[in-house]
Amino acid sequence: MAGKRVAVVGLGLIGGSIAMALQGFEDCQVVGVVRSQRTYDFAVAHHVADQVTTDAAQAVREADVVWLCLPPQAILDFLSAHRDHFKPGGLVTDVCGVKTAILEGARCLPETVDFIGCHPMAGKEVSGVEHAERTLFRGAHFILTPTPENRPEHVALLERMAAYMGFRDVVRATAEEHDAIIAYTSQVMHVMAVAVCDDPDLFACKGFEGGSFRDCTRVAALDVPLWTELFSLNAPALSRVIRTLEENLRNYREVIESGDRAALAEKLRYSSQRKRQMNFSGPPRGDRPEE
Amino acid sequence: MAGKRVAVVGLGLIGGSIAMALQGFEDCQVVGVVRSQRTYDFAVAHHVADQVTTDAAQAVREADVVWLCLPPQAILDFLSAHRDHFKPGGLVTDVCGVKTAILEGARCLPETVDFIGCHPMAGKEVSGVEHAERTLFRGAHFILTPTPENRPEHVALLERMAAYMGFRDVVRATAEEHDAIIAYTSQVMHVMAVAVCDDPDLFACKGFEGGSFRDCTRVAALDVPLWTELFSLNAPALSRVIRTLEENLRNYREVIESGDRAALAEKLRYSSQRKRQMNFSGPPRGDRPEE
Repeated sequence: MAGKRVAVVGLGLIGGSIAMALQGFEDCQVVGVVRSQRTYDFAVAHHVADQVTTDAAQAVREADVVWLCLPPQAILDFLSAHRDHFKPGGLVTDVCGVKTAILEGARCLPETVDFIGCHPMAGKEVSGVEHAERTLFRGAHFILTPTPENRPEHVALLERMAAYMGFRDVVRATAEEHDAIIAYTSQVMHVMAVAVCDDPDLFACKGFEGGSFRDCTRVAALDVPLWTELFSLNAPALSRVIRTLEENLRNYREVIESGDRAALAEKLRYSSQRKRQMNFSGPPRGDRPEE
Repeated sequence: MAGKRVAVVGLGLIGGSIAMALQGFEDCQVVGVVRSQRTYDFAVAHHVADQVTTDAAQAVREADVVWLCLPPQAILDFLSAHRDHFKPGGLVTDVCGVKTAILEGARCLPETVDFIGCHPMAGKEVSGVEHAERTLFRGAHFILTPTPENRPEHVALLERMAAYMGFRDVVRATAEEHDAIIAYTSQVMHVMAVAVCDDPDLFACKGFEGGSFRDCTRVAALDVPLWTELFSLNAPALSRVIRTLEENLRNYREVIESGDRAALAEKLRYSSQRKRQMNFSGPPRGDRPEE
């Protein structure tokens, strides 16, 4: 079908970047759906989408593909408020960093609407359409959590869209796998960053920070409402990963306190070798991708 | 005094970079002191220093300034082996990431030799002269730990050298202050990075990692003998910081487990605000500086 209409609901950092990056894809028309006048004006002035509207119901009625680019709870609310507005036969997807809760919420949709969860592993420490970039996704992973009920042509369509937007690859997982792993690779990195900033010495350390400190704490300046929801919606998995990290830190502390240098060296050899084995072939440090 | 001789003992990543960055400073001759033939050949071929020698005793005898760029224990051993070879009236400094133990070791020097501890807050995840760079120190902090016994002209000389090598600023601290703060801003970042890599899910997470994961674990591929010494020589301070981090992580875990979203949001607001207050004006992410 030529001339598909793609609605991007929510033109924030991620939605705005998706709307920009999707323009020109397979003859699609990209319609941005916004609420505030400020975002509307900015999006129109900067051609963030081919069209911009504040009429969400109308936009999703006409859209063959709907991208929900809102915070988690807002996605759940939108699904339930607009459940009867989505186009029969159409595809609905989202960009939320947790997937089980979203797939659960999407069960309210009629059977004629196909919902597939996504997670573009990219971001920045700032939010809002003014920070959106067409190239935000270059080199990043695009995670898809399809189920056996999803239509294969919709999965294939999302894969083509991901490639067009510049993602490095498409990774498939179940929603449960996704949430367990993301607790480790993304959420606990953010918990660590804020936990480090709780140290009473934070403000005394100016002038003594190097690259590792800047890198680790970079994500601590996070979007509080968003991450409150993400952490809360994935609490059991996240709690397990934090507990494992606490134990691994305690093990390091104990061997350091023991004064047994050979044991410390052996432990460091083990961990650093694991890191080298990972041998991430990702984009170099300093590049874009961020969850 | 024109035509000072500066000996850089140990042409590894840091020593090699210092030797390169100091060339041309105030009419100095930079002499690199190495042990292995491989390093000698590389240093000569790439003009890492104005001269390269394997005769450490002779080099320090003739040097007005000696930079000890060896691992911590090797610095202590060098100080004690060469205590009577240093030039009377000369300056000896080092680049070790812990300072109390080094200043303690430097007490073996004759009173005519002035020892001032330094810590260039820069580095990479790789070691060896082949990774040395003239520009390694651009934008990084240079920490000085002088004592009241040091000669002011030597402190001033090190400050000029730091500026010439491209450091962003010179920060002064006592050795004890340095070690306490560095346990937080550098050492615990490395402990976290290796502790994260101990998670059993490490190899399952391929395809799910974003920038925060790459940034946090980057330094996990560390130089094992070096960091074994650094952690061991600063064990009490490092142990305290790890314990604080364990507590801060547990506090986050408990509020996440409690299901109290308002309390979690309040906690995230507190920590992220602290991070924003830090407002590091350091070089942008992706730049050089690393401890």
